[in-house]
Amino acid sequence: MNEVLIVGSVALDSIETPSGRIDNALGGAATYGSVAASLFAPVHLVGVVGDDFPQEHVEFLRSRKVDLAGLQTVEGGSTFRWKGDYNGDLNQANTHETHLGVFEHFDPQLPDHYKDANFVFLANINPELQLKTLEQVRSPQLVLCDTMNLWINIAREHVLEVFKRVNIAVLNDGEARMLTEDDNIIRAGRALQKLGPQHVIVKKGEHGAVMFSDGEIFVAPSFPLEEVVDPTGAGDSFAGSLIGYLARTGDLSRENLRRAVVHGSVVASSTVQDFSLASLKQLTHDEVERRYNAVQAMSSF
Amino acid sequence: MNEVLIVGSVALDSIETPSGRIDNALGGAATYGSVAASLFAPVHLVGVVGDDFPQEHVEFLRSRKVDLAGLQTVEGGSTFRWKGDYNGDLNQANTHETHLGVFEHFDPQLPDHYKDANFVFLANINPELQLKTLEQVRSPQLVLCDTMNLWINIAREHVLEVFKRVNIAVLNDGEARMLTEDDNIIRAGRALQKLGPQHVIVKKGEHGAVMFSDGEIFVAPSFPLEEVVDPTGAGDSFAGSLIGYLARTGDLSRENLRRAVVHGSVVASSTVQDFSLASLKQLTHDEVERRYNAVQAMSSF
Repeated sequence: MNEVLIVGSVALDSIETPSGRIDNALGGAATYGSVAASLFAPVHLVGVVGDDFPQEHVEFLRSRKVDLAGLQTVEGGSTFRWKGDYNGDLNQANTHETHLGVFEHFDPQLPDHYKDANFVFLANINPELQLKTLEQVRSPQLVLCDTMNLWINIAREHVLEVFKRVNIAVLNDGEARMLTEDDNIIRAGRALQKLGPQHVIVKKGEHGAVMFSDGEIFVAPSFPLEEVVDPTGAGDSFAGSLIGYLARTGDLSRENLRRAVVHGSVVASSTVQDFSLASLKQLTHDEVERRYNAVQAMSSF
Repeated sequence: MNEVLIVGSVALDSIETPSGRIDNALGGAATYGSVAASLFAPVHLVGVVGDDFPQEHVEFLRSRKVDLAGLQTVEGGSTFRWKGDYNGDLNQANTHETHLGVFEHFDPQLPDHYKDANFVFLANINPELQLKTLEQVRSPQLVLCDTMNLWINIAREHVLEVFKRVNIAVLNDGEARMLTEDDNIIRAGRALQKLGPQHVIVKKGEHGAVMFSDGEIFVAPSFPLEEVVDPTGAGDSFAGSLIGYLARTGDLSRENLRRAVVHGSVVASSTVQDFSLASLKQLTHDEVERRYNAVQAMSSF
């Protein structure tokens, strides 16, 4: 089976939302991405933590068959920590504190058995680290990248360099507007697609996602939720399950890409139903299929 | 063929958007609704204007086979005028001025041949006038209502009274949140549906619409647009074409309701592509079907 290589942050998050709060819980783009992808395919994780990273998280990731040979542990270092809230608007995180810790001097070195990965997910992280990782993969069949407003602000040229090298770029509507300086999502998506990626997927939270391909648009619904507890990791698990689904099926046709987007959407819908990875951890493949079929029934006409 | 009775405002609008401005142009919920519905079925309009209402607009409505027997003209009275802008956010109108004019003392009197209408659209207007109109219709097969934030604010009880008497209630996401005091659209839609209507349709602008029925949700996409010139009348033409499509087909099955919602969505997508009714006036049935098929192709998976 195709394997998915994922590079990105592994973090400890402290989060406040209208539903409550948690402190120093498991988080990070690569973490959410890996657990989501592992629903569909084997995962090789690339990242870094300090020796303060709880062993229980390592054991949980191993239990999901996430290969941690590429997860460096820096003795005496501090795991990346993020503190924020979503009070006021569940679509917009307010960052209180960011401690880069061991990420400040991270130099991704891929174990040899990672270098033949066919599917690569460059999850949210400094785009220079995304590029360094990608350069070590011998001949990837499909590369997907995510990013965030921070990198668009302070490392725009590197984000654009990543865009030139990927097959699929995923970003949210705010980031699409920021990167193109265009308020209209349709124009923005088409402009982004011209920067390099064959497909650009703009995530719109509860409103679903739009995928832009050459001469074609796919408007994807979301799985409707009566309550969102914690939006953290929604985008990471969207992209992780999307590429996991592609790796599992090995089918890169446009029809299957659409199915992959909807799988991403339903996995993300589970992620946000509890804090940290509490809900995603419990998500089964059967429940993913149940939600997929429900979304299909809810949106067909 | 089934005929559609539409009551609501007939207005002269002065509008500023990022694309430009117009003064005293044809507008009003019943106007947009009637022209949209007339793409599919004969329309009986109920409304009122002053003798300042330009004859060219009367002639245009007649050319669309909109029956104006129920359009009162008050000698010496002033047509309802609205002035506003959408600068900053195309989803949110800022009202500068509202002159009720002849609407202040409007008492809808239905011509006898209107009273057997099967399909009734209570377009945006004071909910007491919606009720007065509805009471004069003998045995409507389907009643649809729209409303706006103003009436939810100042005439909430009457809005709720209307909701008890209709089959379909249409409102936008902001109005749904306001009426239920719930920020979550899925919970809000379900709560509204319990107030009486068999179906509640929450419009989300560029993000499409969600229809809530007993035990079922329909998530409808919108027709993607690279440019929105003037959002005025989008909701009115959405509802007008929706009920027009139902009247034309005479099919009230859930499957056909879904098709009606998507027809509403594509007609609205045309309305917003120019100021006032400029684009809607030009819209042909063929173009509606082309956009319908395009949306279906863009959203299937």
